[in-house]
Amino acid sequence: MTTANLDRVLNWLNDHEEGSVRRLVDWLRIPSISTDPAYRIECRNAAEWCATQLREVGFKAEVCPTGSSEKPGHPIVLATCEGSPEYKGPHVLFYGHYDVQPVDPINLWESPPFEPVIREGTSGGPGRRIVARGAVDDKGQVMMFLEAMRAWKEQTGHAGGGVKFTVLIEGEEESGSVNLEPFIKSRKQMLSATNICLISDTGMLGRERPAITYGVRGMAYTEVTLHAADQDLHSGLWGGRCPNPNNELCKVLAQLWDADRRVTIPGFYDAVRPLEAVERENWKKLNIDDAANLAKIGLKPDANVGEKGYSATEREWARPTAEINGIYGGYTGKGAKTVIPAHASAKVSFRLIADQDPAVITQAFFDWCSARTPAGCRWEFVDHHGGPPATCRTDSKELQAAARAIKRATGVECAMIKSGGSIPVAGLLKTQLGLETIFMGFGLDDDRVHSPNEKFEISCFRMGARSHAALISELWSLGD
Amino acid sequence: MTTANLDRVLNWLNDHEEGSVRRLVDWLRIPSISTDPAYRIECRNAAEWCATQLREVGFKAEVCPTGSSEKPGHPIVLATCEGSPEYKGPHVLFYGHYDVQPVDPINLWESPPFEPVIREGTSGGPGRRIVARGAVDDKGQVMMFLEAMRAWKEQTGHAGGGVKFTVLIEGEEESGSVNLEPFIKSRKQMLSATNICLISDTGMLGRERPAITYGVRGMAYTEVTLHAADQDLHSGLWGGRCPNPNNELCKVLAQLWDADRRVTIPGFYDAVRPLEAVERENWKKLNIDDAANLAKIGLKPDANVGEKGYSATEREWARPTAEINGIYGGYTGKGAKTVIPAHASAKVSFRLIADQDPAVITQAFFDWCSARTPAGCRWEFVDHHGGPPATCRTDSKELQAAARAIKRATGVECAMIKSGGSIPVAGLLKTQLGLETIFMGFGLDDDRVHSPNEKFEISCFRMGARSHAALISELWSLGD
Repeated sequence: MTTANLDRVLNWLNDHEEGSVRRLVDWLRIPSISTDPAYRIECRNAAEWCATQLREVGFKAEVCPTGSSEKPGHPIVLATCEGSPEYKGPHVLFYGHYDVQPVDPINLWESPPFEPVIREGTSGGPGRRIVARGAVDDKGQVMMFLEAMRAWKEQTGHAGGGVKFTVLIEGEEESGSVNLEPFIKSRKQMLSATNICLISDTGMLGRERPAITYGVRGMAYTEVTLHAADQDLHSGLWGGRCPNPNNELCKVLAQLWDADRRVTIPGFYDAVRPLEAVERENWKKLNIDDAANLAKIGLKPDANVGEKGYSATEREWARPTAEINGIYGGYTGKGAKTVIPAHASAKVSFRLIADQDPAVITQAFFDWCSARTPAGCRWEFVDHHGGPPATCRTDSKELQAAARAIKRATGVECAMIKSGGSIPVAGLLKTQLGLETIFMGFGLDDDRVHSPNEKFEISCFRMGARSHAALISELWSLGD
Repeated sequence: MTTANLDRVLNWLNDHEEGSVRRLVDWLRIPSISTDPAYRIECRNAAEWCATQLREVGFKAEVCPTGSSEKPGHPIVLATCEGSPEYKGPHVLFYGHYDVQPVDPINLWESPPFEPVIREGTSGGPGRRIVARGAVDDKGQVMMFLEAMRAWKEQTGHAGGGVKFTVLIEGEEESGSVNLEPFIKSRKQMLSATNICLISDTGMLGRERPAITYGVRGMAYTEVTLHAADQDLHSGLWGGRCPNPNNELCKVLAQLWDADRRVTIPGFYDAVRPLEAVERENWKKLNIDDAANLAKIGLKPDANVGEKGYSATEREWARPTAEINGIYGGYTGKGAKTVIPAHASAKVSFRLIADQDPAVITQAFFDWCSARTPAGCRWEFVDHHGGPPATCRTDSKELQAAARAIKRATGVECAMIKSGGSIPVAGLLKTQLGLETIFMGFGLDDDRVHSPNEKFEISCFRMGARSHAALISELWSLGD
């Protein structure tokens, strides 16, 4: 696949952008809300619509049922293209999702969520945008890939531009992906043939600052409940005579961090890899404005706190955390009630890095709590699960290829970033298939993902479609 | 008033017990739930009923409106009897309340709460009992006083047996006593003439173990909220980068106690009087079974924890505490949500002793919090108020008189106890009128106060009526 081919492909995308957007609008009209059983048929329609697109661009596509007859899931679209016989590059697994978040609060939408509109930029942002539920998360980003495929098919006649692809578009990403792991296990032989995973569900560093996300943190989410008496007690008659789970839980949890804000659980950092000097240097060059970011959430620079010895970016991208996401015990209504509660609870989660294993960390935390059981109390532990971290090696040739593709498609050097969030599917693919994941996404911070008036800017969509098209050439070059 | 008179009075109570119980049943039929505006007229009826009783036994009684025309309160019954010219003993203020708690959960009542029944003892307790809302709290206990007054009037013709009394029966004890302080202030001149307060709203140490409660703890009730960001944050994108109010609140509150479980607020113990050796010795002789008490609430002896150097009884009766009555922040629903909340709150109350001032302690706590403000955070403080502690000096001659009265009426040496709970009216009377309070109550631990199937055992009622009758003789003797 020559550079000449790519130029024609990029020109085709340019000339046919209206059609690309129109197709996206068609897909966005289907209210595929996965968490609400009322939209079961719409979810299937969205899957079928996607499979049809894939077939149009030369892929073999099937719409695979998931779950059981008692508890059916939403279908998974699974498609393949064989690739040209001469193609020697990696076999790419493209992952995305066709399901969307619910729309409430509906009254805050300026236009109906499933009647997409194209609007000029407002004071909130400069560019023309598509406004609809799912515009950027994730139909719009999947559509960048599909239109890149369409352009290559149109211009060369080859499905996938000759690259060997497997495409997996699920319908339960917004409702817990409960059927994804069993599905991957059931197709393990076929999926194991892939070499790298490509996901377009992330964001750029800023408008006109395309980025590849080469790592996300994992997570272990727990809930601990400290029990004392078998009933709520009067704090006058019992105060000072027996354990108060509220007091004791605070005393235990306060020990989770040392004075440097490092997590004190023994072995917690054993599987964390030290941050390399070159990586620190690269991140520093991104010139991320910590003060400006804090200002966006109403905080002053003195709120830039976290593990000692690391910048805010380093703490988000390369260091694990322990956070109390929820705490509750005793009387929490209005006014005063003089109670010593029977129990108090905390939801404690850990963001994980490198080779930290959620199951190991969860057990270590429970053991740590047990070693601190307050006199007269007992623990109840719940493992709400999570997922392993996922990082793509920075020397990965596919990662470098993706970076070159973005440069070629947009003219801009892409930023190499990570995210402190967790994308469980990436951990799942690593664990089940040994795959590393490259996140090549074109969303913006202010796209209002999961909120009313979700949007995707046309210029972002364009950059994404062009970058995915250029990636085909770069993948070919890896086989040379 | 001779011993011969008292014998006749006690005999009268014995012979007319059926009538005494019948009158109590009449009062209990009136559903005087003060907190529910639907029962406004019933509250007035209960007040009028009480005033009528007082007039029948020779008191001058009025039913005094409270509150304002915009926000009327429930009336207060105020009654007086002049006392005989020869009486030289103390002028006694008797305080009680005619209002009762709501009845829910109504389905757990075995008989309708306002259709009193007399039942034989069941496996839950040996004695015959009156079952109704208000049976013991507080109509039944006020009735012991009223029937003692009736007996003296019947046998001697003298109202109050010649003792100088002021009687104040309020109707808002179960709903915060909001109009009591203004009322006391408005009648300050008249009420200031009294020398000692008598309240019958407490319990015995056990069945057949009558007790005088000579002290209750005070209380300061606060709510503190720690704020950070102006919105809830994603714990993946922000975890490790900025303060988490849940984490920080735990870290601050965990410092409230030292390793000996003493409260660490500077000056907290300044107004606490040391426990005297004789008091400790007396309490030890009560043989309170700590292990048995803990077993009642599902705890083993290892749960006997509290301030170092004090027994459980000493900690409840003579030591102040800090308790987190409620704590809440972030996600507290089912399952997992990865949030760093904008704020976290705790309801922290302090039980107070001796001369500790609620306002001073509250301010000291807020100052202590401020001195520990976590980086990037700010506090919001709420004072939910409380009341001062109230203790009657153990060498009080009125206290000794009450003890002798109980011995004479029941044949049993009464226990001198305190309570860890708070009775705000006692603190109010001390602050406003300089009065000490003697609590001479005859309830039992298992009377189900505030719960379905509230009861008062006839044998307790009998002991109480006889003890109040005997107190008249003892008060006379103080003037000799």
